[in-house]
Amino acid sequence: MFQKKLLIKTTGRGSYEITNRINAAVAEAAPTNGMCHLFIQHTSASLMLCENADPAVRHDLEVFMADLVPDGDSRFTHTAEGSDDMPAHVRSILTQTDLNIPVKSGHLALGTWQGIYLWEHRTGEHSRTILVTIMTDGQRSNLKP
Amino acid sequence: MFQKKLLIKTTGRGSYEITNRINAAVAEAAPTNGMCHLFIQHTSASLMLCENADPAVRHDLEVFMADLVPDGDSRFTHTAEGSDDMPAHVRSILTQTDLNIPVKSGHLALGTWQGIYLWEHRTGEHSRTILVTIMTDGQRSNLKP
Amino acid sequence: MFQKKLLIKTTGRGSYEITNRINAAVAEAAPTNGMCHLFIQHTSASLMLCENADPAVRHDLEVFMADLVPDGDSRFTHTAEGSDDMPAHVRSILTQTDLNIPVKSGHLALGTWQGIYLWEHRTGEHSRTILVTIMTDGQRSNLKP
Repeated sequence: MFQKKLLIKTTGRGSYEITNRINAAVAEAAPTNGMCHLFIQHTSASLMLCENADPAVRHDLEVFMADLVPDGDSRFTHTAEGSDDMPAHVRSILTQTDLNIPVKSGHLALGTWQGIYLWEHRTGEHSRTILVTIMTDGQRSNLKP
Repeated sequence: MFQKKLLIKTTGRGSYEITNRINAAVAEAAPTNGMCHLFIQHTSASLMLCENADPAVRHDLEVFMADLVPDGDSRFTHTAEGSDDMPAHVRSILTQTDLNIPVKSGHLALGTWQGIYLWEHRTGEHSRTILVTIMTDGQRSNLKP
Repeated sequence: MFQKKLLIKTTGRGSYEITNRINAAVAEAAPTNGMCHLFIQHTSASLMLCENADPAVRHDLEVFMADLVPDGDSRFTHTAEGSDDMPAHVRSILTQTDLNIPVKSGHLALGTWQGIYLWEHRTGEHSRTILVTIMTDGQRSNLKP
């Protein structure tokens, strides 16, 4: 079992591709087959597997979420940390705090169009921690990290 | 660690029960106790654990989602692949790309009313791939596959 | 691999913190590093990692969900079990049936503000079952359960 902390600096609301960072952790752990687990230690940012070809997809997701959970919504009472804070919690609840991605023959078994994203829901800058855990079948691959 | 790819043909938007397919994979792996992980390698179809008794539940889920994320919504800019494509990405983001279901005494530890479904969000026909990974405690059950 | 069933009595819609119950299961299993998986065997209650400091966050989540999926919504046809039943299924689909939380040095690797909650979506009293599975690297910690 391999564990590693990743720090991701975010510069405002939006999705940040982290596929290469996770690929690097898998190469370091060098399992043949296994499971790669991602856990974000926050409640106002989340994880997402999303189409990685057309950036318009992630733009449209932002538009959808901004309408579904408006900043400054008068229904919200948890407002001390800013008008974007409670919407960030709601957006996190509606998406994922943890993801499991299988590892097959030494590589993440992602579909052709799947990328891994950290979705920052706060409008300011933040430092986010993702804990990567890789569980293996006990065999190491011949792939060089 | 056991891995198997399942191909599921879908014939339009809707939920397709795959509990029997997953039960068959568990029988083949024959763990005593373990974890069964399902990963769908797509961003416009998802996985769902849903009430399996009254089909009206899944009908109502479709109605809810169709209203929440309307096909052809004028807010969406990712439209080249059809009016149902961006809604399919949103619906996937709001549901699950991967599921973990415990295995106990050789069987999936589902609740009485839980069924496993592939939720196709596109309106056309598609061929979907689910990667099943079963992690075991190293003991094989006496159950015949 | 460690498995344990937890029974949680709920007394109506709302979120119930279960972090201490899960911490106790981890102490009993006593892994050094590993993965703690939670699975709720129901389709009208779910699991949530949520901000654990200000109860207003969970209050606002209830307000948001009650507006997004109204009880007694005339669109719903699955109504035999009450006006809150179909909304409970929708709320479950939009949140999580299972969660994986890493274990590091004998403890759940939760962020500072993350608590684990059972989210009861039905308005009446219910008895809910959560299956806890802890997968370890085979080493037991020196922590006393």
